[in-house]
Amino acid sequence: MSITLTNIREAHQRIALLIHRTPVLTSETLNRRSGAQLFFKCENFQRAGAFKMRGAANAVLSLSEAERQRGVATHSSGNHGQALAKAAQSVGIPAYIVMPRTAPKVKQQAVAEYGAEIIFCEPTLQAREDTLAAVIEDTGATFVHPYNNDQVIAGQATAALELIEDTETLDVVMAPVGGGGLLSGTALSTHYLLPQAEVISGEPTGADDAFRSLQAGKIIPSEQPNTIADGLLTSLGDKTFPIIQEYVKEIITVSDEEIIVAMRLIWERMKIIIEPSCAVPLAALLQCPSSFSGKRVGIILTGGNVDLASLPFA
Amino acid sequence: MSITLTNIREAHQRIALLIHRTPVLTSETLNRRSGAQLFFKCENFQRAGAFKMRGAANAVLSLSEAERQRGVATHSSGNHGQALAKAAQSVGIPAYIVMPRTAPKVKQQAVAEYGAEIIFCEPTLQAREDTLAAVIEDTGATFVHPYNNDQVIAGQATAALELIEDTETLDVVMAPVGGGGLLSGTALSTHYLLPQAEVISGEPTGADDAFRSLQAGKIIPSEQPNTIADGLLTSLGDKTFPIIQEYVKEIITVSDEEIIVAMRLIWERMKIIIEPSCAVPLAALLQCPSSFSGKRVGIILTGGNVDLASLPFA
Repeated sequence: MSITLTNIREAHQRIALLIHRTPVLTSETLNRRSGAQLFFKCENFQRAGAFKMRGAANAVLSLSEAERQRGVATHSSGNHGQALAKAAQSVGIPAYIVMPRTAPKVKQQAVAEYGAEIIFCEPTLQAREDTLAAVIEDTGATFVHPYNNDQVIAGQATAALELIEDTETLDVVMAPVGGGGLLSGTALSTHYLLPQAEVISGEPTGADDAFRSLQAGKIIPSEQPNTIADGLLTSLGDKTFPIIQEYVKEIITVSDEEIIVAMRLIWERMKIIIEPSCAVPLAALLQCPSSFSGKRVGIILTGGNVDLASLPFA
Repeated sequence: MSITLTNIREAHQRIALLIHRTPVLTSETLNRRSGAQLFFKCENFQRAGAFKMRGAANAVLSLSEAERQRGVATHSSGNHGQALAKAAQSVGIPAYIVMPRTAPKVKQQAVAEYGAEIIFCEPTLQAREDTLAAVIEDTGATFVHPYNNDQVIAGQATAALELIEDTETLDVVMAPVGGGGLLSGTALSTHYLLPQAEVISGEPTGADDAFRSLQAGKIIPSEQPNTIADGLLTSLGDKTFPIIQEYVKEIITVSDEEIIVAMRLIWERMKIIIEPSCAVPLAALLQCPSSFSGKRVGIILTGGNVDLASLPFA
């Protein structure tokens, strides 16, 4: 395995000035409701609103001086695009974010606010990749992949590192899975620091490619995913899959209805704003509470970037 | 003045096991936006979802053994009713909550969940007072007024006590005003512990009785209040008004539009759920940012009990 505990600890020191050490919150009501003792690592309070800031900051701060001058580039209209823009802005280097013309205005604004240059493309995978390749050829910028990148994985791993440092011990550590950057980082930190703990993930049934990949023993790409958890649509990568295969015990799939119930519980009982993707691990836990009964369970809440004008609560 | 610093410190010790010491949060974005340094005391994370738990707990724990046996009563379908029910449940004594038949089901459920007996009445002030009087005659329960009560004021004062302890120093302390329990307690704690700091309040223009009372030099009752800040509809009491008159420098009135803008800023930027009433001080500050420029401002966020199915964000 290429990412060591030393890599993760160095990433943590490297990014310290660019990230918040987010709090770990608990809730009596959710403990009662779940029958477990829950510890929520609140990356919804992270800078730029999501854990993605950790990986983006580590990638940016790992560049050579020459690379810095040419900047960074990625294709993402979501949290990774915002995080990379903010990380680049924080150290004063250019960021180029390729985004489909159809991306919501609020996401465009957020990236623009962080001073990045937005390059629009047609809303297809091919156009996105072609446009990114052209930008990189043009600028010499370094591509920072949203998850299939060792620096990014080591950066995301620091969320679980802090969670484990700030709780006395845990029996289970949970994170959702999209492309697997957070989950593989979480699995590595847990493996190194709490080897007796289990890593369990949740995934939307409408985007269950990671679940099917584990079953098949090879990467099954995500095809036409359809879920409210819009941070979890992507496929696993060749760097994240082997780590997940080795260190994640189980992926539990949950319906959008279960995700909304769990999301509402966290909003109403903990009074914090989380994205639908965050609610996936709690939804998985509530699906089979007996498996978690009496256990100390750490859950990484991934982000808080939601559009308040279109919430799923009726 | 009848409430001393010793009373407040004793209240704080008395209620320690029944309340959370809530965190003080900051936000770079809101600092930048306001030009001030803001410290938010998060009573939206308090037990039962609001600062009201402090006053209710202090009142319940100040009862004699004989009084405890007979329990407590109040008329409130809002946060005070929930807090009194939860405080009573925590020490195992009866609570009787008088509530209009028309109170929203979610509020009825919350009070019932905390094991209180609900007594319904017609939705008029007269019916509410008559029903409460009958309950008290019947049961011998002690009436705990939502704000015009020394134990309640001393309890609410502990929020500012903690805020002042947890920040190095403050130039201004802000809280909203309804009946004035929180504001008078905040003013007392600030007077005792940070006498050089100013206490400034915000009030909705649609319920500006406290603003007008300060102008008139006597209590002007709230008549047909109309504002989204539904925790701030009540009139000042003869215990809260003199304290506010003496120790509050200014009450700034804000429109519902300003309240919604401030509420949205806190939701979107801080990723926490607050009631409209909480947003009133920030709305006041944003109305005249030059008055607060460069200052260290503590703001008490009062509660987080909102109905997610009817939010003011379009």
